[in-house]
Amino acid sequence: MKARVFVTLKTTVLDPQGQTVRAALNGLGYAAIAEVRQGKYFEIGLAGGITAEQARKDVEAIAHDVLANPVIEEYRIEILE
Amino acid sequence: MKARVFVTLKTTVLDPQGQTVRAALNGLGYAAIAEVRQGKYFEIGLAGGITAEQARKDVEAIAHDVLANPVIEEYRIEILE
Repeated sequence: MKARVFVTLKTTVLDPQGQTVRAALNGLGYAAIAEVRQGKYFEIGLAGGITAEQARKDVEAIAHDVLANPVIEEYRIEILE
Repeated sequence: MKARVFVTLKTTVLDPQGQTVRAALNGLGYAAIAEVRQGKYFEIGLAGGITAEQARKDVEAIAHDVLANPVIEEYRIEILE
């Protein structure tokens, strides 16, 4: 079983890294790029014996407690297979 | 129009950052976590006047030339709306 976790800064939090990427892309001639926000992406492989329910519970806890900082970041989870 | 770009190390490339996260999670008691691979995630906002075809072309070029290093990384694109 596999899981994906996407961590991004909350929309109310300034993302200077993303702004820098946007400015660089505009400078390279990609005028249509209006906004870029950068985040983190985790692909998690889970041991075979685990149920989908337990997998979701574990990954939810991991995302909240370890991978994201809930004060300034939000996360989204996908459980695959 | 929005686009998402996911950049990950190729599976043949060692991911020490992901291995460290996996070891830390196992140490915290999440024994079911067998593998973690960390990547980058970009949310890109595109100007209104652009067609879906042009958007895909631009984002594909950006992902290949700027956001990912095709020697060691692979990327996946989603065009939304």
